[in-house]
Formats: sequence, structure tokens, C-alpha cells
Amino acid sequence: MKNNRICELLDIQYPIIQAGMVWCSGWELASAVSNAGGLGIIGAGSMYPHILEEHLIQCNAATNRPYAVNVPLLYVALEEHMELIIKHKVPIVFTSAGNPKKWTATLQSHGIKVIHVVSSRKFALKAEQAGVDAIVAEGFEAGGHNGREETTSLCLIPMVADAVNIPVIAAGGIASGKAMAAAFALGAEGVQIGTRFIATQESSAHQSFKDKLLAVDEGDTKLMLKKLVPVRLVKNGFFKRVAEAEARGADVNELAAILGRGKAKKGMFEGDLENGELELGQIAATVDVIKPAAAIVEEIWQEFTDACQRMGSVIA
Amino acid sequence: MKNNRICELLDIQYPIIQAGMVWCSGWELASAVSNAGGLGIIGAGSMYPHILEEHLIQCNAATNRPYAVNVPLLYVALEEHMELIIKHKVPIVFTSAGNPKKWTATLQSHGIKVIHVVSSRKFALKAEQAGVDAIVAEGFEAGGHNGREETTSLCLIPMVADAVNIPVIAAGGIASGKAMAAAFALGAEGVQIGTRFIATQESSAHQSFKDKLLAVDEGDTKLMLKKLVPVRLVKNGFFKRVAEAEARGADVNELAAILGRGKAKKGMFEGDLENGELELGQIAATVDVIKPAAAIVEEIWQEFTDACQRMGSVIA
Repeated sequence: MKNNRICELLDIQYPIIQAGMVWCSGWELASAVSNAGGLGIIGAGSMYPHILEEHLIQCNAATNRPYAVNVPLLYVALEEHMELIIKHKVPIVFTSAGNPKKWTATLQSHGIKVIHVVSSRKFALKAEQAGVDAIVAEGFEAGGHNGREETTSLCLIPMVADAVNIPVIAAGGIASGKAMAAAFALGAEGVQIGTRFIATQESSAHQSFKDKLLAVDEGDTKLMLKKLVPVRLVKNGFFKRVAEAEARGADVNELAAILGRGKAKKGMFEGDLENGELELGQIAATVDVIKPAAAIVEEIWQEFTDACQRMGSVIA
Repeated sequence: MKNNRICELLDIQYPIIQAGMVWCSGWELASAVSNAGGLGIIGAGSMYPHILEEHLIQCNAATNRPYAVNVPLLYVALEEHMELIIKHKVPIVFTSAGNPKKWTATLQSHGIKVIHVVSSRKFALKAEQAGVDAIVAEGFEAGGHNGREETTSLCLIPMVADAVNIPVIAAGGIASGKAMAAAFALGAEGVQIGTRFIATQESSAHQSFKDKLLAVDEGDTKLMLKKLVPVRLVKNGFFKRVAEAEARGADVNELAAILGRGKAKKGMFEGDLENGELELGQIAATVDVIKPAAAIVEEIWQEFTDACQRMGSVIA
């Protein structure tokens, strides 16, 4: 790409980034995306330190291209995760769910690029002040954990891109090259794609969850648990218990008890579609086939270049 | 524009449509937008029949260009509205909030183009089957009444555009030419813009509500009253009463009592910012100046053509 700061910053061919996703994106998916010219991300939020180390060793063996690790900054074993990332020379870290002030300079002193995920203009400006190299702006339609403002990608991307000087990666609602072109029209210089990369051979998601993803239609996900931490869930048995409790005004304690522990693993990794927590973005409604990750990167890139050419000839 | 089906269908210069908005879009705004080369819409949902007739007479006197009337199909005096629209030779009708089956053929037999507003792919297909000439696909981020699926514009526009053969107009989250370009990248052939056209001299909104619009920031609106009919509201005193009731699980009857009658008029037309209902889209956070409607049409068109040219040169 011409003059694309994300490709330059991350040393990648296409500014197509596979999101780090708990239970769904280990070294197999991340290395496949990176080998295809995008950027793969290992989702460390669901990994014990010794599991993460195993994934880093495998990923380093599977690709010579840059890849990244996504680290939620509220993770209990955060320090151990960061030490492993430095030890195994991970070139790029995506941080989320917390304040990027504490770790950004340390990681950068080891030559690691730091990119922070936000869901508002306000936190984008804070992250820029903290010295991160780029921003992911993630809209309301994204799967998993999400912002309290509920700002959608169409509104959020231009607000963040106009506010900061560092490059912006758009996330939430993107699963095609058309949507990538839309994000670029709004000022993004890269896209982060989660849901669509679960529908791959390489994703570590349970096969039942992948099949569920293909079946999901419009209206089948909803942002829930707003009194705890907002999270977009697929409507299933677990969802229903949450929805019923919320409709009658359940408080934080009751909701935390319903959520319990290990529900995300149960749903997405072990394939209990009824009692587990299933996290997908709204755009799952358009995903209907499982492919190799490399084929998705190529397809999105082709659609994107087609859309750009079409846009260039819209005006008479 | 080259090969734009919305411009051809509606006989307009730019595929920029000003949304019909209760209490905010009478003949002055609609005629100003149409005279500027877009399409202005009179929002009939807040008008008694004799008021609507006054607006039709004034609009016919103020412009020779096509304009439209937006009619919620659940409106109590629907038949009288439709008779007036036929009598005064309104060229285009936008229908919303109801089944387009009953009125589409009748209006078309009088030479009137019919465009239906939907918030899902499912209802887009039903509207196409009912014979409407085009679809407005309106996302979760839009102001005012909204769909239960909560599908955002970035997800909804391509889903609808891929599903139907008739042209699609994107609505929700659009207040700039960049967002218009994004909508076109997703498959739309026109845009419907509401919130930004309230920030005009010609809008019939109360000056206090216009000033409030300029002050609104990200996170200042939220989709509420989901147990009744979902509506995006500005956070104010009225909003707080609704939010408190919903948090403790208030039922439909209690919510209907809080809503009462005339709250939208009180807020948006009479300027009671504390006790009235204020409807704005999320994109209000980016609107910070009041301008003539014609200047907005020109500015959006210029931004759009710039964005299209920029997109055409993205690829090396």
C-alpha cells in the first residue's frame, strides 16, 4: 500500500489485523494470518503464563513475519505475561481493558510496538498521551467486551481519527473488504477483524462454536451485563438467564453470580452452546463459511482494492 | 453522479436526503434542502392533518424541485395524511414504522415514489416484496425510533444492499461526506441525514434544542424504552427518570406512564431541555455549528467527492 502508516509501523504487507480473542486465537491462527501478509494476534487473556509461553514458542517457530499478543491490562498475571513477551521477543503488543500508561514505555524500551484498544475519543486521546504507537477504535457492534458509551464504528472511527495524530485501526463490524474500504473512507489506516477469523480452520474455537457462528443471523447478538462490564453475547441459554435477571433489575452481585467463572471457556473452547458464554460481533450474521485464514486475508484484500477502484470512479 | 439510481429515481442532483424528523423538519427545512439539490423531507409524524396541509402548500410554493413527506404508518390520522399528500401532488413519500403493503400501490398509482425505512434485512426484503421503489436502511446509531435488533449501520447497510435489488439509502451515523463515502463503499446509493440538519437556521427545532445538539458529546445519547418502542434519547432529566425505572425492572405500563404524551414536542419544539424528550443520533457528538441547510448539502457533497478521489488513489 502507498503511504500506509500501519503497514510501515508493523512491517506488514496488508493492514489487515486478526483480533486477539479469548479461547479463539492461539499461535496457529496468529501465524497463519501473519504468514498471509496480515498481522495475527495471540489472545493472551484466556491463557495462564505457561500456556502463553507455549504459544509464543510455537508462533516463533511457525512464522518469520511480525505477529502480536493482545494483553488485557486487568489480567491477574500481567507482569508474568509481559516478561514472557519480552523474553520471546514478541515484536508488537496490543493492550486493552486498562490504563496504557504503566507498560507502554517499558515495552517500547525493548523495541516492542504498543497499540492500545479504545472505545471512545476520550480514551484515544489518553492513550496517545501515554505514548502508544497506534490506536484500535472498537465500535459497539464488536463481539466480546465493549465500551459503555455504545458508540458505533461509523461514529467512532472518524471521531478518533480526527482527534489523534497516531494511526487508527478500525474494529467492530468489519468482515469484508467493503467494510475495510468504509473504515478507510472514515480515516482508518488499518482494520482489526475478529469474528470472521473464528470461521477458520486455524482458530482454536470449538467446532460447535464455529458452526454456531455460521448459523447466527441479524439480531442474534446483544450487548449485555452493562452493570458489570458490557459484553456482546450470542443469544443462548446463558444469555437468557442474564436477560431475565436484567429485565427484573438484578443488581451487580446477582449478575456476577450468574456470570460465575469459566463460562467463556465452557462456551467457546469446550463447545457448550447452551450454558457457555458465546462472544461474537453483529457482523457474524454475514459469515457463512469456514475457510483457511490465508484465504480470508486474500479475499478481504481483493474486495478492498475493488471497492477503492469503484469509489474512485463514483464521480462523473 | 454517474449511474446513481437514487438520483434517477427521485430526479435530484445529489443523493443527499434530509430525514423527516418530528418537530424538527417542516417546509422551511425541506424546501431549503431540495433547492440545494438534495431531497428535503417534511416530517408529518408530529403534524395534525391541517398542519401538514399548511406545510405542503408552503413547500410547493417554496420549491419547484422534488421533496418528500415522511409518514409513520402507525399514525392515527394516516388516511387523511395520505389524501392530502395525493391532493397536493407530493412526488415522494417515505413510509416508516409499519407495514408498507397497504399504501404502496395506491400512492404509486398517483405517480408517487414510495421509499420505506427499515432497520433489518428481514424487513427490507418484505418492503421490496411490497413493491416499494427504494429502501432506507437505518442503523442503531440513528436518533429517534429504532429497531429491536440494534444492528449498526456498518453491519446493516451491506446486509440490506446485498439482499435487495432496489436501491438502498443509508441512515444512522451519517453527518459528513466521509461517512457518505463509507456508506457508498458498503453498497448504499444515497444517504439520509437527520441530526446534522437540525443544526440549521431552517429547522423548526427550538433554539435551545439546537444549542443542546451542539453541546452533545460521545456517550450523551442512549437507546431506551426497549420494552415499549426503542428510541435513542439525549441524556437529560426525562432520560434519567426512564433510566432509573428501567434499571429497577419497570414494566411496560410504568414506562408508558413516564413517557406520557407530548414529551417530544415539549423537548424539541418548546425547548424544555430538562423534562422533554430529546431525540438525536450518536453523530451529534461531531456537530458543532449551525449553518444554512444549503451550506451543509454543499459541504457534504464536497467532502464526499474528496473522499472518493482519495479512495481511488489508496492502492499503489
